[in-house]
Amino acid sequence: MKTVTLAHGNGGQENNELIKEVFYNAFKNEILERNEDAAVIEGGKLALSTDSFTVSPLFFAGADIGKLAICGTCNDLAMMGAKPKYLTCSFIIEEGFEVSQLQSIVNSMKEELAKNDAIIVSGDTKVVPKGSVDKLFINTSGIGEVLYSGISSNNISTNDLILVSRDIGAHGATIYISREGIELSSNLKSDCSSLFPLVKALIDEKIKITALRDATRGGLSAVLNEWVKQSNVCIEIDERSIPVSDEVKGVCEMLGFEATSLANEGTFVLAIAKEDANRTLEILQRFENAKNASIIGKVTQQYPQKVVLNSSFGTKRFLDMPCGELLPRIC
Amino acid sequence: MKTVTLAHGNGGQENNELIKEVFYNAFKNEILERNEDAAVIEGGKLALSTDSFTVSPLFFAGADIGKLAICGTCNDLAMMGAKPKYLTCSFIIEEGFEVSQLQSIVNSMKEELAKNDAIIVSGDTKVVPKGSVDKLFINTSGIGEVLYSGISSNNISTNDLILVSRDIGAHGATIYISREGIELSSNLKSDCSSLFPLVKALIDEKIKITALRDATRGGLSAVLNEWVKQSNVCIEIDERSIPVSDEVKGVCEMLGFEATSLANEGTFVLAIAKEDANRTLEILQRFENAKNASIIGKVTQQYPQKVVLNSSFGTKRFLDMPCGELLPRIC
Repeated sequence: MKTVTLAHGNGGQENNELIKEVFYNAFKNEILERNEDAAVIEGGKLALSTDSFTVSPLFFAGADIGKLAICGTCNDLAMMGAKPKYLTCSFIIEEGFEVSQLQSIVNSMKEELAKNDAIIVSGDTKVVPKGSVDKLFINTSGIGEVLYSGISSNNISTNDLILVSRDIGAHGATIYISREGIELSSNLKSDCSSLFPLVKALIDEKIKITALRDATRGGLSAVLNEWVKQSNVCIEIDERSIPVSDEVKGVCEMLGFEATSLANEGTFVLAIAKEDANRTLEILQRFENAKNASIIGKVTQQYPQKVVLNSSFGTKRFLDMPCGELLPRIC
Repeated sequence: MKTVTLAHGNGGQENNELIKEVFYNAFKNEILERNEDAAVIEGGKLALSTDSFTVSPLFFAGADIGKLAICGTCNDLAMMGAKPKYLTCSFIIEEGFEVSQLQSIVNSMKEELAKNDAIIVSGDTKVVPKGSVDKLFINTSGIGEVLYSGISSNNISTNDLILVSRDIGAHGATIYISREGIELSSNLKSDCSSLFPLVKALIDEKIKITALRDATRGGLSAVLNEWVKQSNVCIEIDERSIPVSDEVKGVCEMLGFEATSLANEGTFVLAIAKEDANRTLEILQRFENAKNASIIGKVTQQYPQKVVLNSSFGTKRFLDMPCGELLPRIC
């Protein structure tokens, strides 16, 4: 590893290598190395997470960088069973950026904050000369109050089933299409949305939650591959049960993508105790953004640390951690 | 305001206008509007702050972007009487950036974290294509435990004296010189350093602290002008008592700067109850980075919301909030 490549930001294999070799190596501590969506601190009472957003274009079907910046951090907190509470935001703005666009982005943030009943309590604004940044980057960090303890990607067992909250790949496909200027007469739009209301419903209905993770960069494949390693299990997925919209299927066929590696921004994977899996489906399906939630697989000991995909043709293959140059600036 | 200009990032007048019109307007809440260095949350127990670092060059005399990123956020927490505890860090890296440079920056972060006895608990890494960012930006956000309550820039009164912890302007002068490639046979280096140990000493010795603020973008002028407005007082400064090194004086004379508007990254301004001011000086001067701490002025009601500078020639003038295009990418 001599220089940082686009592959090092793919949310997959090379990304993890960079993080482990450079960052974990220097910063190592027990909390960081748990490798969860958010750090749980203060004796388990609070969760803390950070994300920088560099998405291009800034505005796309279904959302913009502002909505994404709030959903991204709030969702990471929700994935640890935490209610998003206090956020910080930091803007890096290129000289010459239009104030009206900034205002529109900030309004999206405001709307999405309300959905999480969270507030921005601290901020930072940097303006850099033309050419030093492409238009606008936003960082959000957030603190949440842990409502449900013990969620962890390190505790998944054969007693769990694997669910996904909705059809996958919409965000990645939308960004790709809008960046390439491909015009599709379709309803394709990003799934970008806040997941806390869904998680709260599960908690309120006393579902036994083992693990939750939103399938952002690297998509469903990355989450499942991280989980099998962290919990030292095998996850077997039934390909037919993974919901994929016709629009996303179309983009995948046209461009040679795998829907399972495409990024999502309002889609999460759940490991839920078997006896609660059907009730979880019912609860999720009450929500507009989880109407086609599905049970997609089970946890076994067959191939520890591997994800097995049982295809619709009756064949089996390993679903690997995404690698190489995936779409950059997806989030 | 149609487009964002470099002046909107100056830490001075235009910066405050952008923040108030665009950000406060949308995000308004009581905590944000207190306008302190860090937000105090959870019933006064915790402080929360965020900062993005875009400094250019990445390496400069006395520090690098990594050290700066830890000092910046930890110092903001310290300014609210909080002990830095948990930090997040988020890297936005340009494709092609050298891993050895990244490693060196991360090592600086590690060293500075140790000085604050703080840890990184959550992180994010984005890699963007060449040209989308200039080399590397870092965001750090942090949570601190409030050790001393009631520090506020809104409570400064005529019972306080104004102090500065060391000679001013070293960071701004260093960045300017290194960016312009001016070679000076001098010892000029950034003041970048962690301030928590100094604040802790003041707390341990039971000093009555009214307000603290580190004089970053916009320098001493910005802090004093914010304070007179927030507390509705007049601050009268004795120009001769402001410590300025010969090196910084030289740079200011050569380039036409005011030392009072130059950025600092390890220099703070204090409003301290009169009876404790001399003891505060003694305590600060025990530290290498505060050897020339000074009492620089007093609080009066003469010109509310104004900063008065009593010059060495016996003349008086208002010291205004910095405005216009100050040096960009200073932090």
